[in-house]
Amino acid sequence: MNYRHPERDQIRIDGVLSALGNPLRLSVVRLLDSGGEQNCSRVLNVLGVTAKSTMTHHWRVLRDSGVIWQLASGRENLLSLRREDLDARFPGLLDAIVTGARTDDPVGARAGSGG
Amino acid sequence: MNYRHPERDQIRIDGVLSALGNPLRLSVVRLLDSGGEQNCSRVLNVLGVTAKSTMTHHWRVLRDSGVIWQLASGRENLLSLRREDLDARFPGLLDAIVTGARTDDPVGARAGSGG
Repeated sequence: MNYRHPERDQIRIDGVLSALGNPLRLSVVRLLDSGGEQNCSRVLNVLGVTAKSTMTHHWRVLRDSGVIWQLASGRENLLSLRREDLDARFPGLLDAIVTGARTDDPVGARAGSGG
Repeated sequence: MNYRHPERDQIRIDGVLSALGNPLRLSVVRLLDSGGEQNCSRVLNVLGVTAKSTMTHHWRVLRDSGVIWQLASGRENLLSLRREDLDARFPGLLDAIVTGARTDDPVGARAGSGG
């Protein structure tokens, strides 16, 4: 299964902000930012999320807004942050968000601990 | 009538991102960023919004997330961006967002045209 992703120039700032205006999705982004490409299971595990169906929705929001790549790989899905595209479209935005999220919640996302 | 606003240290990044993940609210912020304190009527007028009741909701979202001050002044409400608080809490975030919004929509918010 291949997922649809917007092209770089289709990424809209209101979509990105809306996608990241959610604590769990923000944690996913922090995790991917610190740990590079990861499979879904590991992300769920690190974040302590057990409800896979809930995450299906969150993956879609992050994917459709252009924040992450989600690629099928065998029975798994690989997730990665579209940092290059986001930095090209909105310079400084992702860094400001990740830094700000760390300010709010220094430990959060357990993002620094596992990757 | 006095509105409640969060203290600076109560402002959360997910709340700010969620508030700004909406094209109309993003336009309000661009307008306030370029024009300083404005009254509600003028903002509605510049943005071409006629549904005042809809805006009541948007003002609340922007106020509760810590993005704007809304102060009663006679029969009017004065709106201003909490730039100092936002810059202190999340350095670079507001600039990246306003610049990004301008990239997406160079004319939008008619923010540069009205003063």
